Amino acid sequence: MSVLIVGSTALDSIKTPKAENPRLLGGSASHAAVAASFFGPVRLVGVVGQDFPRRYLQLYKRRRIDLQALQILPGKTFHWSGEYEANMNNRRTLLTELGVFETFTPTLPGSHQNSPFVLLANIAPSLQHHVLNQMQRPKFVVADTMDLWLNIALADLLKLLKRLDAFVLNDSEAHQLTTEDNVFAALRKIHKLGPRYVIIKKGSHGSILSGPRGFFICPAYPLHRVVDPTGAGDSFVGGMMGYLATARGSIEDNFRRAMIYGSVVASFCCEGFGLLRTAGITRGQIDRRVKELQRLTKF
Amino acid sequence: MSVLIVGSTALDSIKTPKAENPRLLGGSASHAAVAASFFGPVRLVGVVGQDFPRRYLQLYKRRRIDLQALQILPGKTFHWSGEYEANMNNRRTLLTELGVFETFTPTLPGSHQNSPFVLLANIAPSLQHHVLNQMQRPKFVVADTMDLWLNIALADLLKLLKRLDAFVLNDSEAHQLTTEDNVFAALRKIHKLGPRYVIIKKGSHGSILSGPRGFFICPAYPLHRVVDPTGAGDSFVGGMMGYLATARGSIEDNFRRAMIYGSVVASFCCEGFGLLRTAGITRGQIDRRVKELQRLTKF
Repeated sequence: MSVLIVGSTALDSIKTPKAENPRLLGGSASHAAVAASFFGPVRLVGVVGQDFPRRYLQLYKRRRIDLQALQILPGKTFHWSGEYEANMNNRRTLLTELGVFETFTPTLPGSHQNSPFVLLANIAPSLQHHVLNQMQRPKFVVADTMDLWLNIALADLLKLLKRLDAFVLNDSEAHQLTTEDNVFAALRKIHKLGPRYVIIKKGSHGSILSGPRGFFICPAYPLHRVVDPTGAGDSFVGGMMGYLATARGSIEDNFRRAMIYGSVVASFCCEGFGLLRTAGITRGQIDRRVKELQRLTKF
Repeated sequence: MSVLIVGSTALDSIKTPKAENPRLLGGSASHAAVAASFFGPVRLVGVVGQDFPRRYLQLYKRRRIDLQALQILPGKTFHWSGEYEANMNNRRTLLTELGVFETFTPTLPGSHQNSPFVLLANIAPSLQHHVLNQMQRPKFVVADTMDLWLNIALADLLKLLKRLDAFVLNDSEAHQLTTEDNVFAALRKIHKLGPRYVIIKKGSHGSILSGPRGFFICPAYPLHRVVDPTGAGDSFVGGMMGYLATARGSIEDNFRRAMIYGSVVASFCCEGFGLLRTAGITRGQIDRRVKELQRLTKF
């Protein structure tokens, strides 16, 4: 079944201690859509400006991503610029130019409104609501978020939580939302806000699922070198949703493996700038790392 | 087979945001010895003063810990006092009174010198050497350490690394020792310093083993509430060594399960002040959490 993904489609200029790369393909929806595309059909909902490089449209197309709901408007593409420290967990934003993203209000074509799997990738909660309002009884709705929305759009986000099947956030955001230092205590509080499934991402420490069958401790794939972690969280949810939407059996049965798949796609994402590494991998490479993770965690 | 454990035997006064407990039984060797005692015979090497409460000697004895090499000397027991912040990963030392520990130079009785498993729990590297010098061809030697020794006794520690089968340290110490931010890159560098097995502890994020069969990603047992994490790392290595020393089969075959057992004993340690929780558990309770960890990580 196909996954509808809405989020940001951007140009990222990224600086690390070792290199600098301007105007890479980025944004939460780009990373999530490419990650999901290894598993099945993906419908991208987003907006770019007329400066958006043709080669990035071609990249989407090579990954067979449906671009019917990608608007190309007069003006500039959303441009984000950030710099990482030697410890890749610390980054600062240097620049944010919203461009055409500032007035983004997607209208879904009829064909998209019945997508069974919906991924509301990181974007303003009001836009996540706006897209969800246009969907006809989706089977499974997942949303990701970021600290910015907890700071400036908490009421919208809290309303959204009641409409989700699964909510994904990172450990510092979980702390911010619940004031709990303990991840498992935070999970309990977040369930009370609505979602049946809650996933807390912990970067290189993996992630934790809390759902109807209890917890799942999901490892991160061991990387000796992280080139650029931008988009790793988006790749994680994208890969997870791509797997969930296409695997046979119940969502409940598939959820753990879906997270493992997400974790593996995220590991590839970290090995190159932007989408440079992820866009070139194969399903076979993903499957091999999934098997390796099985070996690395068995006891 | 029995495990010989040398380290500190102390009185710990611990303050958390919720409670304060003075003069608890503490020290690296106390935590490690009690943890190891759930699996098989333990020989404790340490020193206490005449102020050492009789009830703590009784606690050791209830756990059937061999106290032949525990010296009781005129003077005061090593006393440490520390305070935790709401985020239990942050603590500061309020007071350190070495007492009889200042001149501690253990002489092992003949019966102890042929212990097959040796755990050099956290203590000055010179003392770890001193004990190791008295051993007759031990089968397996593991050492733990702390940032203090990296700061003031690095040369001794580097010499020790060449004499170990396994070395255990936490992630920030691994960073300090190797200047590597990446855990897996740090592991590679530490192997070059000597030990065949290296374990990096990551607190609530679990631990990573690197050994002849590659990596093992070891989870932490999920706790909703941490009462006092003091001694969790010592409990981890103690439980691990206790299991390794008594399990049938090769060390290589047993190592992953040994870490899981260590991780579970450490989880109990965090649920009470000092050794209050750990001292009261049973092997059955430990086994149940091991099974639960298996369920929590399977995919």
